[in-house]
Amino acid sequence: MPISRRLPRSIATVCLSGNLLDKLEAAAAAGFDGVEIFEADLLTFEGSPADIRRLAEDLGLSITLFQPFRDFEAMPEPQRARNLDRAERKFDVMQALGTDLVLVCSNTQEAAIDDDARAAEDLRRMAERAAQRGLRVGYEALAWGRHVSRWKHAWKIVQQADHPALGLIVDSFHTLALGDDPSSIADLPGEKIFFVQLADAPRLSMDALSWSRHFRNFPGQGELDVGGFLGAVARSGYAGPISLEVFNDDFRAAPARLNARDAVRSLVLVEAEAGLSELPDPPRSDGFAFLEFAVDQTSRRALGAFLETLGFRLAGRHRSKDVELFRQGGINLILNAEQDSAAAEHFQLHGPSVCAMAIQVDDAGRAMARARALLCSEWQEQRGVDERVLPGIRASDGTLILLIGPDDLGEGSTSWENDFHMLPLPVEDGLTRIDHVAQALPTGSMNSFVLFWHAVFGLDAQAPVDLADPQGLIRSRAMVSADGALRLPLNISESRQTSTGRFVTAFAGAGVHHVAFEAPDIFAAVRAMRARGAATLPVPPNYYDDLAARWGLDDALLDQLRAHDVLYDRDAGGELLHVYSRPFEGRFFFEVIERRGATGFGAANAPVRMAALARL
Amino acid sequence: MPISRRLPRSIATVCLSGNLLDKLEAAAAAGFDGVEIFEADLLTFEGSPADIRRLAEDLGLSITLFQPFRDFEAMPEPQRARNLDRAERKFDVMQALGTDLVLVCSNTQEAAIDDDARAAEDLRRMAERAAQRGLRVGYEALAWGRHVSRWKHAWKIVQQADHPALGLIVDSFHTLALGDDPSSIADLPGEKIFFVQLADAPRLSMDALSWSRHFRNFPGQGELDVGGFLGAVARSGYAGPISLEVFNDDFRAAPARLNARDAVRSLVLVEAEAGLSELPDPPRSDGFAFLEFAVDQTSRRALGAFLETLGFRLAGRHRSKDVELFRQGGINLILNAEQDSAAAEHFQLHGPSVCAMAIQVDDAGRAMARARALLCSEWQEQRGVDERVLPGIRASDGTLILLIGPDDLGEGSTSWENDFHMLPLPVEDGLTRIDHVAQALPTGSMNSFVLFWHAVFGLDAQAPVDLADPQGLIRSRAMVSADGALRLPLNISESRQTSTGRFVTAFAGAGVHHVAFEAPDIFAAVRAMRARGAATLPVPPNYYDDLAARWGLDDALLDQLRAHDVLYDRDAGGELLHVYSRPFEGRFFFEVIERRGATGFGAANAPVRMAALARL
Repeated sequence: MPISRRLPRSIATVCLSGNLLDKLEAAAAAGFDGVEIFEADLLTFEGSPADIRRLAEDLGLSITLFQPFRDFEAMPEPQRARNLDRAERKFDVMQALGTDLVLVCSNTQEAAIDDDARAAEDLRRMAERAAQRGLRVGYEALAWGRHVSRWKHAWKIVQQADHPALGLIVDSFHTLALGDDPSSIADLPGEKIFFVQLADAPRLSMDALSWSRHFRNFPGQGELDVGGFLGAVARSGYAGPISLEVFNDDFRAAPARLNARDAVRSLVLVEAEAGLSELPDPPRSDGFAFLEFAVDQTSRRALGAFLETLGFRLAGRHRSKDVELFRQGGINLILNAEQDSAAAEHFQLHGPSVCAMAIQVDDAGRAMARARALLCSEWQEQRGVDERVLPGIRASDGTLILLIGPDDLGEGSTSWENDFHMLPLPVEDGLTRIDHVAQALPTGSMNSFVLFWHAVFGLDAQAPVDLADPQGLIRSRAMVSADGALRLPLNISESRQTSTGRFVTAFAGAGVHHVAFEAPDIFAAVRAMRARGAATLPVPPNYYDDLAARWGLDDALLDQLRAHDVLYDRDAGGELLHVYSRPFEGRFFFEVIERRGATGFGAANAPVRMAALARL
Repeated sequence: MPISRRLPRSIATVCLSGNLLDKLEAAAAAGFDGVEIFEADLLTFEGSPADIRRLAEDLGLSITLFQPFRDFEAMPEPQRARNLDRAERKFDVMQALGTDLVLVCSNTQEAAIDDDARAAEDLRRMAERAAQRGLRVGYEALAWGRHVSRWKHAWKIVQQADHPALGLIVDSFHTLALGDDPSSIADLPGEKIFFVQLADAPRLSMDALSWSRHFRNFPGQGELDVGGFLGAVARSGYAGPISLEVFNDDFRAAPARLNARDAVRSLVLVEAEAGLSELPDPPRSDGFAFLEFAVDQTSRRALGAFLETLGFRLAGRHRSKDVELFRQGGINLILNAEQDSAAAEHFQLHGPSVCAMAIQVDDAGRAMARARALLCSEWQEQRGVDERVLPGIRASDGTLILLIGPDDLGEGSTSWENDFHMLPLPVEDGLTRIDHVAQALPTGSMNSFVLFWHAVFGLDAQAPVDLADPQGLIRSRAMVSADGALRLPLNISESRQTSTGRFVTAFAGAGVHHVAFEAPDIFAAVRAMRARGAATLPVPPNYYDDLAARWGLDDALLDQLRAHDVLYDRDAGGELLHVYSRPFEGRFFFEVIERRGATGFGAANAPVRMAALARL
């Protein structure tokens, strides 16, 4: 059967921070159709269940589920009888809330009896009582349930109970965490699946309970095949809500509205992965067309001079604005000092820093359509007559990302370069292209950035790497396109004293921490830079002594590395040579990189760089 | 054999933050005899190995070990031969550093061959080369070694290699993490144990590598029997250094000097546990003699009035200082507005807040001797003529802790009360004693506080509990004496927006977040408080509806709870009833608690309290 259809989107209140009203407002603002009310959010809220029902109605939200009802089935007496009384009290609450469905998760109590018939009989009785009130009961296998931990087992009990008001609830985390195969969910009668919960997670080797309670995340942020799971659900004919249920320490502390928007973004993505809807393909990218720095007059002079020591030349002046273009090889850096512009606002907030990244895409219209479907806010700079309007979106942190299609490139009249009076000077080519742009992120925001780059640009998140800064660990995760043309390492640190932590504090948010340029000959590039007065970040001699022992490098190469402050690493793809500039005004810095086949970022050398930065 | 002897104390540089010089200085300042040089710290340091040798000598530190030398033994050719070359390079570094011992940890490479004879032969060859330079090789089993993961296996290989310059290195983490029994380490020839590394850890269900790399801690901070391990080592006749090797994300970001002091404190404790030395017994305590608040004139009036609504009365004025005593039942609260005092300094930094806790102990002299042995800084307030000098120490955060022995109590001339002109007023007794004092801690400091209260006062750390604040998770861990008379819950939160996070930010550090008073009749206490104008923290009606369903309480009790804003919980010991005040000037607050057998703190109710605080 064709499965393409729009299922109602729902989110459990436990995914969002704040009190219940904050959560409802955030869910509504992001465009959710409904919410699961997590009981703890109800208990701590000062309004009655009827108040919540009204609030939800006013916000256009249905209440899709009340949860969790724990430790119900297969108990010995007298708990068995008491549990039915307990259910009646919850039915009262559900009726006041205006929801007809309660989630019963499989019993985790030691006292629970391993007897499917008893479990089925208990659930049948509960369903019978629910039916008398027009309510329904959904039974879900918790991955750490005492006797019932897999959906097939829960389904067997639901079948055995055989009551129209009793159905199955399936959850991608509980299914995929156990390595369970979701594909035969497609064979269930869709109408007996009462509810579907979705969560992703990174693959961690810890007990399922701790993993579940602290590290779940939204689909597209983790490593589980949530799309495959949802596809199986859709093939069953299920027509109810798809609902995010995510326990995550960072999400509990994140701004609710931003997090709710990420939640919808994740659903849009996973619906497309499951074949429930279509999304324009992600763009193919050849890399960065240009980076734009927000500056004022003073810092423009300083940054321009700094870039000149790296071999950049002033290549153009904007036709109508106080904006300059610096160029080297295929690298374009724009220094924007225009007053009353978005760049000027950015400068006010953050000082001299990257305010926009222009990314080359194969089709700007398609890229923008995808971004729009994924809830990105569009952006347009005010432009002069005859100037190109470059389509732009805002990243999670507000960074402006411009989409540069084939028409906007090159030297034609439609090129973005056409906005500039180009200077007829020869351009250096010691550095040829932007290899990667590294961003420092505020604590708790990694999942949000991973989702943005993965969903909108189709980049893959590489495995996280821990980098030891002298003042604490930095966790780094690179977002990379399939062909490696677009590379964005994301760095985050709990400590405010690390290189990343200091940047985020000074910058007041996420920002570009360093930019790496590719050099075909790194030693020549360093010599040229030094000849123009650039200073490389010094590398301790001990580092080179160890390199010799570690890799068995020949003395000639070792001497060259040492003489040029060049760091060396090797990965499955080959060798990597890289060198760092000193930071510009203690802020961001530049890297020069020569890839001899390597695809990594020289993580083994990061502590050397961080120790050197800490010394400055 | 009698094992009581002083072994040299050492610490691996990876335990401490900063660059290598910071680390050496911190280790020396804390009183360590030596350091293990962790290779990464050497590579990122700008000085040569000879510089480090001189720095260490100047600081009175020996370099006990160079580590780690990885993936050496039982490799196929050509790596096998290359590894011996690699070793020669490391021997060069060791000689420049002035250390004679290198740690070879068991091979983790897939390519490693499962052949003990080959491993033994490789190690013998390496030892032979080391011996030619007067150096030694120690072989250690990593818990995640590819073929060798247990000390007995490593020992078998060392025996097989049979070279005088090759010995065994044992590590408490690698041994205890695998549940391995350390007791037969006692049967080894002590002189063949070349080095001993110690680390503790919380019991976590995750893979040994992640556990080891992020969550180790110092002995006394975790749950492994490091004392038993060290006892077995000592019985072997081992006479070398005992060295802390701890990989911990928090420690990497912690101030190096404070962390180094904790490190020595942990060694003093574990040496005593292992029978290597003697420590005075921890004090037995009946609880808190008094709490002292730092105030100024204005906040004293306000806090005095606030306390009066809770039933406290002004009971005395200090003979020589601007200090008042408020009392109820056995609870003493001192309001110190004396200028040019430690309290005044505290007030300057933190505003109105608890600046000292006076703890009743069975023997103040013994308690002080133990605290001194555990590196606590002593403290003495300036006192007037004929006034008692109360012995005091500083907790991790600088909080003053006074030790009140039997002589300092009661009404005799030696009592601390004797410093006050007591007022002949009757005292209320609705509240009888301090049940617990809860502190909010800055991120990353939990281990430090756990060690302080465990080591100095013999309190046990209860299992951590996660509490859901509307703005993020709070992790709570209670330190409790064996008989429950002294209870100190410690709360910590990554988020700065939670109740705990807001407190730590406003207070600029760790401080007393709330104080709980015991009431024999909580309902009478609430009525009396309300009659005096105190407002209780409001509790949402939904909370009580759920209580009914959860516990099957009778309606009479439920009505009483509801009418008095009293929260209810139950644990293995019995029932717990508690109620909260509103915060004093948005800072700290008070709790009234009636224990009907329960020993917990009502963690299930914490979200209700936190949501209510967030609303205020």
